[in-house]
Amino acid sequence: MNRPLALDRIRIVLSRTSHPGNIGAAARAMKTMGLRDLWLVAPERFPDEVATARASGAIDVLESARVVGSLQEALADTVFSAALTARRRELSLPRMHAREAACELVARVSDGIVALVFGNETSGMTNEEVGLCSVPVTIPTDAEFSSLNLGAAVQVLSYELRMAALGETASAPLDARAEPATHADFEGFMAHLERVVTASGFHDPANPKRLLPRMRRLFNRVRLEKEEVAILRGMLTTFETPKRRG
Amino acid sequence: MNRPLALDRIRIVLSRTSHPGNIGAAARAMKTMGLRDLWLVAPERFPDEVATARASGAIDVLESARVVGSLQEALADTVFSAALTARRRELSLPRMHAREAACELVARVSDGIVALVFGNETSGMTNEEVGLCSVPVTIPTDAEFSSLNLGAAVQVLSYELRMAALGETASAPLDARAEPATHADFEGFMAHLERVVTASGFHDPANPKRLLPRMRRLFNRVRLEKEEVAILRGMLTTFETPKRRG
Repeated sequence: MNRPLALDRIRIVLSRTSHPGNIGAAARAMKTMGLRDLWLVAPERFPDEVATARASGAIDVLESARVVGSLQEALADTVFSAALTARRRELSLPRMHAREAACELVARVSDGIVALVFGNETSGMTNEEVGLCSVPVTIPTDAEFSSLNLGAAVQVLSYELRMAALGETASAPLDARAEPATHADFEGFMAHLERVVTASGFHDPANPKRLLPRMRRLFNRVRLEKEEVAILRGMLTTFETPKRRG
Repeated sequence: MNRPLALDRIRIVLSRTSHPGNIGAAARAMKTMGLRDLWLVAPERFPDEVATARASGAIDVLESARVVGSLQEALADTVFSAALTARRRELSLPRMHAREAACELVARVSDGIVALVFGNETSGMTNEEVGLCSVPVTIPTDAEFSSLNLGAAVQVLSYELRMAALGETASAPLDARAEPATHADFEGFMAHLERVVTASGFHDPANPKRLLPRMRRLFNRVRLEKEEVAILRGMLTTFETPKRRG
């Protein structure tokens, strides 16, 4: 699965981050999802060896990170921006959920660079910072315990951005479905099964009970593949006549 | 936003975790998304103060965690299980993406307890462990950098489970279906099938090919009922020793 181009136009902005470890964790989270453009607004400590250690294989993201003095600078060339906020903020702006915001950000890249902004670990985004962004975003955490740390929040949103960028391809099955069994294949298998269970004495045609309807119901549910029917029938054949090995 | 009831029936299983910090991070990630049921299979160090520190406000999840010796024990009473695996595993099983797996897990809670299993930090899930689960799952990370750490993986999947659970309108009635087969029922059936197809000569243990994984995949798809397993095993018994009729 290649890196969708939309991700190149999505900027992650960390504002006033206190702990350099979180900057490293964010870089790693971003890179796992194909995001590379990291901007840091007035970080308390950066560069820092703790950030480098936590970034693990994503040191390139840290090294190319832009450090600026204000959120305005980080957003200057963007066409749309979303601000992660805590759940219960008093704001007149309608909030978006993470998934919805990710779709919106990805949709807006056709206009230019878009940004997703994360505030300070303890204090979050200030009202002024949120006001600079186009829309506030929340992750729908549990009401009783909403303490996502910064790295985890960046991970969840980077994942949602990737899923949105992959779009329809992401929900498609990874493995193309094998050739399905036809009705005739299915009936052939049922007849074979009936013959074998009758021969083994499990099924008594004089007193059939509900065995065969139940087996039909079971194997109908499974959407058998052609090849599976062949295997099942091969199996039944050896129950009729055990196979000898050389 | 209240905690959806489906989440109470979803078990997170961490198998052979090396670093206690990751157990703590997983507990925290779970709790932010409303998940509480944590099982640990043979953790290297647990309980441990590093786990407690990383759990932050989720110490209750750690304290109620069940520690067991094998994955079989952790899955024994489950009706469906998904195993997180790396992207490029050679398996005939169809893989599910994280989102799809989350929807499937939430859908299956109407049958009983479901589980999501995470392997060791370095080695991941063994093939044997994956084989015990109903379906392998991957997080669609960037092909060039797929190194999600354990805490991040638990965070992403817990988030997807929460989103899936919130998406379920009214949870399906539990009584509509017959009693589902448990993991132990399923494994008993698989072992019985293996014995019978070996005796019949269809399966050659010296040259197993892909027969047994394919049968697992087939019967996993079907959501077997307890009574169906009993019928199938009754059938297998007569293939081993044909029944005489008076």
